[in-house]
Amino acid sequence: MKNQEILEKDLKYNWHPCTQMKDHEFLPLIPIKKGEGVYLEDFDGNRYIDAISSWWVNLFGHCNPYINKKITEQLNTLEHVIFAGFTHMPAVKLAERICNLTKMDKVFYADNGSSAVEVAIKMSFHYWKNKGEIRPLFFSLENSYHGETIGALSVGDVGLYKDTYKEILIKNITIPIPKDKSEEETNKALRKARKIFEKYHKQTSAFIIEPLIQCAGYMKMHSAKFVKGLKNLCEEFNIHFIADEIAVGFGRSGSMFACEQAKIKPDFMLLSKGLTGGYLPLSLCLTTDEIYQAFYCDYTELKAFLHSHSYTANPLGCAAANATLDIFEKENVIEKNKEKSKYIWESIQKFKELPNVKEIRQTGMITAIEMIDYPWQERKGLQVYEYGLQNGVLLRPLGNVIYFMPPYIINKEEIDRMINVAYEGIKRVK
Amino acid sequence: MKNQEILEKDLKYNWHPCTQMKDHEFLPLIPIKKGEGVYLEDFDGNRYIDAISSWWVNLFGHCNPYINKKITEQLNTLEHVIFAGFTHMPAVKLAERICNLTKMDKVFYADNGSSAVEVAIKMSFHYWKNKGEIRPLFFSLENSYHGETIGALSVGDVGLYKDTYKEILIKNITIPIPKDKSEEETNKALRKARKIFEKYHKQTSAFIIEPLIQCAGYMKMHSAKFVKGLKNLCEEFNIHFIADEIAVGFGRSGSMFACEQAKIKPDFMLLSKGLTGGYLPLSLCLTTDEIYQAFYCDYTELKAFLHSHSYTANPLGCAAANATLDIFEKENVIEKNKEKSKYIWESIQKFKELPNVKEIRQTGMITAIEMIDYPWQERKGLQVYEYGLQNGVLLRPLGNVIYFMPPYIINKEEIDRMINVAYEGIKRVK
Repeated sequence: MKNQEILEKDLKYNWHPCTQMKDHEFLPLIPIKKGEGVYLEDFDGNRYIDAISSWWVNLFGHCNPYINKKITEQLNTLEHVIFAGFTHMPAVKLAERICNLTKMDKVFYADNGSSAVEVAIKMSFHYWKNKGEIRPLFFSLENSYHGETIGALSVGDVGLYKDTYKEILIKNITIPIPKDKSEEETNKALRKARKIFEKYHKQTSAFIIEPLIQCAGYMKMHSAKFVKGLKNLCEEFNIHFIADEIAVGFGRSGSMFACEQAKIKPDFMLLSKGLTGGYLPLSLCLTTDEIYQAFYCDYTELKAFLHSHSYTANPLGCAAANATLDIFEKENVIEKNKEKSKYIWESIQKFKELPNVKEIRQTGMITAIEMIDYPWQERKGLQVYEYGLQNGVLLRPLGNVIYFMPPYIINKEEIDRMINVAYEGIKRVK
Repeated sequence: MKNQEILEKDLKYNWHPCTQMKDHEFLPLIPIKKGEGVYLEDFDGNRYIDAISSWWVNLFGHCNPYINKKITEQLNTLEHVIFAGFTHMPAVKLAERICNLTKMDKVFYADNGSSAVEVAIKMSFHYWKNKGEIRPLFFSLENSYHGETIGALSVGDVGLYKDTYKEILIKNITIPIPKDKSEEETNKALRKARKIFEKYHKQTSAFIIEPLIQCAGYMKMHSAKFVKGLKNLCEEFNIHFIADEIAVGFGRSGSMFACEQAKIKPDFMLLSKGLTGGYLPLSLCLTTDEIYQAFYCDYTELKAFLHSHSYTANPLGCAAANATLDIFEKENVIEKNKEKSKYIWESIQKFKELPNVKEIRQTGMITAIEMIDYPWQERKGLQVYEYGLQNGVLLRPLGNVIYFMPPYIINKEEIDRMINVAYEGIKRVK
C-alpha cells in the first residue's frame, strides 16, 4: 500500500485535530507506517526525524524495545481493572515513585492533560467549599495554554483556541506575563500580579501556571524567579498554586520538573505527555496531604471528590510510565541532556545572522527560533513545515516560531540535520 | 506479595476516583494481580466475576488473547504519532469501519468519554457560530450523566456529582424524563419537552441524550419512542441531536448502537468504553458531512475546529478497537447476546418475590434490580457490594440499584453464580 491510497480513505472518514482540513488540498497528510528511534517512516519509504516528539510526548524513541517489553508483560497479566474499590501493582508503584520524585503526597489519575487540569480546578474549588468558602474564580497567565475541554480552555489565554467559545466558558482572571526573563521585567510583572491578587483573592480558588515555558503559547519563556514570586503571592493571599507540568515535566525544562528550578512545592502538580514515554494517554493530578485531608471524612458528610474516568489508572498506561521512569533511573538522562541542550544552543547561534530571525531562546531541552513579525495570514511557519517534511524533518511551527523538542535519544548527527534543515527552511521563507 | 502489603502502600499514595477514601478504613481495597476472562484475581488468590465489566468497559474478557495479539503487533510497528498533519492505518481502518457501522460520516478522536462530550458541545456551538448564530445553551435530560469535566458535568444532572460545582458550571436546560417506558408516560414527557424546545430553541445549540438507558443515573430506562420523539423535536426546532452512546454502545443496549432501535441518525454520536474492548482510553465524536462542511474553508477565515489532545487517535488504542470490531464480526456477538439477555431476564424473575425489591428492568445486556427506597444515608447498596466481594462477585450498586453489565463472554454457570450472589446479598440487606 502506498501513501496515496491511504490518504484518500483517511480524508473520507477522519477529521484531524487542530487542523483546517482544507489545507490538505495542497498539503498532503503523511501516513506513517512505522516508528523507530527518532524516525517516523511513511508508506512510500520516506523517513522523518520527529523533532517535536509527536506533540511533545515521546522521550526515548518510537517503539522503544524496553518500554514495549514492559507493556507486553502487563498486557499478559492485567490489561485493566476498575480503580474504584480496586487497585493494582503498576498504579501503586507509579504513585510511590512519582511522589518520591516530586515530593508531592497523593496521586489522582486521569487520561489526558485537559482532564488533569479539570481535576485540579474542581479539586481546588471543592477544597474551599469543604472549608466553607465559595471561590468561583481562577487566575492564570496571559498567553497560557492548559488544554481544550471547557474548564481547561477557560483558564487558558491563547485566543486562537479560546475566542470562538467565549460565550460557553467559565470566568477566569488573566495575569500579565513579563516580556523576558530579566530581573526588571520579572519584578514589573510580579507587581502587576500583586494588584490582581489583592483585588480578587477572596473569590479565587487557585492560580495555574506552566512553569518556565508556555509551550503552546509560542514557546515563551520566563524566569524561575517569576514562578517563585507567584508562588509567594499564592501563599501570602492563601490561594492554591497549580503547576501544569504536562508539557514541561520529565526533563523538558532541563530539570526533571520545572518546579525544582523555582524551588517550590505546589499545591497541585499536573503531569501527562512524557509520563508514558509517548506511548499512551495517562495523566496525573498530584496534590498534598493537606488537600487530601479536607475531603477525608464520613461518607454521609458528602465531601468526597467523586470525579472519575472509566480508564482511571489504566494498568497499561501505568506500565508504560513505570518503564519510562526505569529509563530515567538507569540512564542518567537529565545529566546527559545537559550536554545535548548545550550542543543545540551552540549550533543555533548561526540563526541570529538570518535577517528574518528575531530571537532565539532555550530552556533545557526546548529551543525556539522566533522569526520576525510576519502577519499571521501569511503563514510563513507553514513554509518551514513544508520544507522540513520535504527534507526529512518533522518541525511543526507555532505561527512564526520554529522550535525543537526532540526525543532525548537524538544523537549529534540527527541534531545537526534537524537544525540545518530548519536553518535552510527559515532562510528560504518568501 | 499479599493483599495487605500492597494496600498499605496504595493508601499512602493513591487517591481513588469516585471514592470517599475513609470508607477504606472498614472496606479494604482489593489489589488485583491478574485478569482472565470474566475473572479478576487478587494477591491472596481470591477470584471475582467482573459483573460490571470494570466500569462498563470490558466486552470480551480480561487479557483476551486475540486483542492482546493485535496490540502487541501494533506495539512493534508504531506505538504513536502526532495526528495533526499525519495519519496511520489503525485510525484509517477504524474510522472506515465505525462509519460503516453507524452510518455516520466523520470521526473526530479524543481520549475519554468526558472529552468526547466536550468535543461535541464545542463542535455544535462552533457550527452555529460559523453559520452566524450564537447559541450558548444546551438541552439534556433530567437524571442524565455525561462525564465530569466542566463542560460534560454541566450538561449532566446527577446531583451527587454536579451540585458541589454549580458555581463553576456553564448553563444548561434540563428536560424531564418519563416515569417508565409506557406510551402514556412517553407522550407526557414529550409534551413537556416540546414546551422547553419552544421556549429556548433559538439560543440552544444541541440536545444531548444517553439513548435508552441512563447508566450512571441509576440504570433508568426509557422507550425508543421517547428517543425518536426527541429527535423529531430537534429536527422541527433545528437543534443538533447528540447521542451519547459511551456506555450504551457496542451492544449493551441489545443492538450494536442504541440509535438503531430508535431508527435515527444523530448529528453527533459519542463512543468510548467498550470501543477498545475495555483495554485503553479512546473516544470518538462521530458527526455528519453537513457539520464537517461548516468548518471546511480557507484557513484565514478562522473557522477550523482547533481542538486537540496529544494522544489523539493513539495507534495502540485504535488497534485494540479494530481487534474488538473483528470479534464482533467473526462471532455474531449481538445475536448470541440475545440468548444471554433472555436467560438473565428469566433468571431474575425470582427477585420480584423479595420484599425489599421494588422493580426489575432490562434493556439488552443491562439488567437492573431496584431495591425499595432506603434512605441514601443507610447505604444498603454497599452491603450488597460487600456481600458480593465476600462471595466472589464484583457488583457495584448505584445507591439502591444493583445491576449486571458483565463481559459478553460470560457463560451460563457464571451468570447463575452472579445472579445467585446478588439475590442472597439483597435478601440479607439489614
